Amino acid sequence: MKAEIVAVGTELLLGQIVNTNAQYLAEACAGIGIDVYYQTVVGDNVDRIVSALRIASERADIVICTGGLGPTMDDLTRDALGIHVGAELVMDEDGMRKIEAYFAERGAVMVESNRRQALTLAGADVLPNDTGMAVGTALRRDGKLYVLLPGPPRELKPMFDRYAKPWLRANMNDALPLFSKSLKFAGIGESGLEHALLDLIESQADPTIAPYAKEGEVMIRLTSRASSEAEAFAKMADTEAEIRRRVGDHLYAEEDVSLDAVIVRLLRERGATLAAAESCTGGLFADMTTSHPGSSEAFAGGIVSYSNAAKTALLGVPKALLSGPGAPGALSAETAASMAEGARTRLGTTFAVSFTGVAGPGPSADGKPAGLVYLGVAEEGKATEVRELKLSGSREIVKLRACRAGFYELWKRLR
Amino acid sequence: MKAEIVAVGTELLLGQIVNTNAQYLAEACAGIGIDVYYQTVVGDNVDRIVSALRIASERADIVICTGGLGPTMDDLTRDALGIHVGAELVMDEDGMRKIEAYFAERGAVMVESNRRQALTLAGADVLPNDTGMAVGTALRRDGKLYVLLPGPPRELKPMFDRYAKPWLRANMNDALPLFSKSLKFAGIGESGLEHALLDLIESQADPTIAPYAKEGEVMIRLTSRASSEAEAFAKMADTEAEIRRRVGDHLYAEEDVSLDAVIVRLLRERGATLAAAESCTGGLFADMTTSHPGSSEAFAGGIVSYSNAAKTALLGVPKALLSGPGAPGALSAETAASMAEGARTRLGTTFAVSFTGVAGPGPSADGKPAGLVYLGVAEEGKATEVRELKLSGSREIVKLRACRAGFYELWKRLR
Repeated sequence: MKAEIVAVGTELLLGQIVNTNAQYLAEACAGIGIDVYYQTVVGDNVDRIVSALRIASERADIVICTGGLGPTMDDLTRDALGIHVGAELVMDEDGMRKIEAYFAERGAVMVESNRRQALTLAGADVLPNDTGMAVGTALRRDGKLYVLLPGPPRELKPMFDRYAKPWLRANMNDALPLFSKSLKFAGIGESGLEHALLDLIESQADPTIAPYAKEGEVMIRLTSRASSEAEAFAKMADTEAEIRRRVGDHLYAEEDVSLDAVIVRLLRERGATLAAAESCTGGLFADMTTSHPGSSEAFAGGIVSYSNAAKTALLGVPKALLSGPGAPGALSAETAASMAEGARTRLGTTFAVSFTGVAGPGPSADGKPAGLVYLGVAEEGKATEVRELKLSGSREIVKLRACRAGFYELWKRLR
Repeated sequence: MKAEIVAVGTELLLGQIVNTNAQYLAEACAGIGIDVYYQTVVGDNVDRIVSALRIASERADIVICTGGLGPTMDDLTRDALGIHVGAELVMDEDGMRKIEAYFAERGAVMVESNRRQALTLAGADVLPNDTGMAVGTALRRDGKLYVLLPGPPRELKPMFDRYAKPWLRANMNDALPLFSKSLKFAGIGESGLEHALLDLIESQADPTIAPYAKEGEVMIRLTSRASSEAEAFAKMADTEAEIRRRVGDHLYAEEDVSLDAVIVRLLRERGATLAAAESCTGGLFADMTTSHPGSSEAFAGGIVSYSNAAKTALLGVPKALLSGPGAPGALSAETAASMAEGARTRLGTTFAVSFTGVAGPGPSADGKPAGLVYLGVAEEGKATEVRELKLSGSREIVKLRACRAGFYELWKRLR
């Protein structure tokens, strides 16, 4: 069945808060086989909410609203749905008793407007609010399903999971639920991946094949309807095998997980350790590595050696490499190798990666172009290797892409 | 004028990503006097995008689309707008040359689909993409304004600020334009700031006073309509003076700029230099510092000393501080001070900051709670100081809040 999520709140339209409820509900819907086709955000205005409900109910079977169930005059979602479906507002006695009890327990005077939070619609099912006061509403009318949920995420999430989701499952008349599998790739771009799989993508039916790219990560999601996950995965098997045959060399995970998370996991599994020597990436590689709980077991430390003095003092890079006649200089394969080896030996780790280059936006003082990065990888008992990268994008993106290339090199050694 | 933001992308409908672009654009629109009445999210389906554009253009004067400008067959926003307004797709030659140059520079073969990223519509103005490949489009048609922006925030934000915003100002026909002034605060939370300014916020008229909080940064935006910026600022003067009287001690900038950017600027202006010694922040402080062009003049380097061995080897923290009977241990004010001093003397800088603590999510092995962080600040010719922080939030937020506290301590010394 097709759904639309309607979030109500002027604070969303002003950009004061991010619509995380829409993401939560969209993902939760996908998980139970509800296809979300549209999301709408509308302000605290009853005419515009009614208009949004009308459009939503014309193009979807299920309309899930969030926000606008509170006690103030700005909370108009119930009123708008009442107008849209032609139903009276009625008081939910259980909800009202709970609100009265809340104030009585605290010896507080209840402002009359709080009664509004116990309002629902005639003929509707009430969704209890275990973590707040405003009751939710679930209504079947003219073949459409309507669900009203409160705006605060700590009220919305439990209400959806405990009460709205079972109500939807019971009231939906769909045949089969939906199951998905995510495949994540490294060392290949979105267009490269799509090029390799173009005929599969163009002729997709069941399973569907959707490529995703975000911030340099590339993912393929296979999706199929079936009576069980095992049956869905069986339907995907041939397609997945063909994808693996073509680009399996770049496949690093069968779930939506970042490459840096996989590297931390692989290091811990193998009892291996890692150090970093960063110039142009400025600490981002260490930051990404240490963003994962438990990374302290695998990551010994890093050195951000922005200045030449720091490269010599902290990493032992020979001065003769950095300056003087005929010296390769800080931006060179030789310096990258020396940095990686310096970090590895000083911190006594299995691996060390190093980055020296030009993050940009402009070229370096000696005219090297922005995006030129030397990536060094030192490994215990092996020769140090250096890759020359030519990266594009803003300063931030060059830093990020250099780090991803570093994780990719580690992954090739650890997989 | 009324606007609608239309975000295109099945990954939004599936809840794989949060629609942060809508928030960014909503806030940016509010700043230039554009009222956003609706936001819509639609998937990568040309018919549904056309339908969303039709509805949006019926209820708004300005339609701002994000996403769907990439190279793949799923990128359909240009095509949909072409259908909606009846305009042909045309190649932007400048954009095409930039894409070709990108591949030529890298000696890479350009997949044909990349040409799509240089497509715009006949009669439209092209919005250059300084941080990516897909060009943006700005079109005036039948009294409506249409703007197409790429989905990745790193491309969308500079394109909107540098090119779409001036285009909108030039093409809007509002009576009086809106002018805003942003005041940014450090070392005070949103509720503390709101508490201090509550009567001003409640009685606001012209200028309006809007508090914003995101990721631990707090901002007040004053907004007024006037015939010129000077006139608008004159209308704001009394309110601003009163705000300064109450919370001026926390005011670090009169524009929407991050505290770390201000620190890098102040260091450069004073010819001062900075080093960092990071344990629990894991490189984030160095990464934030080096995210600013020109930071290499001020930031000598940093040490990410996750292990005790790294603290001793790279920073000279005495082993007796770290372990043994009665030793204060790694998570202590003494170690934070020693780390800051070690970084400052080894890198010969004016300042050094250090962080040692528990990023979480759980407590440390010796039972110290997540969020406990010792922040050390060493300064040439002064006694080293240490602050004990008790931070809340996820691992990521604890890291971020600790770094912000470090920048705040530097700001108090540099302002």
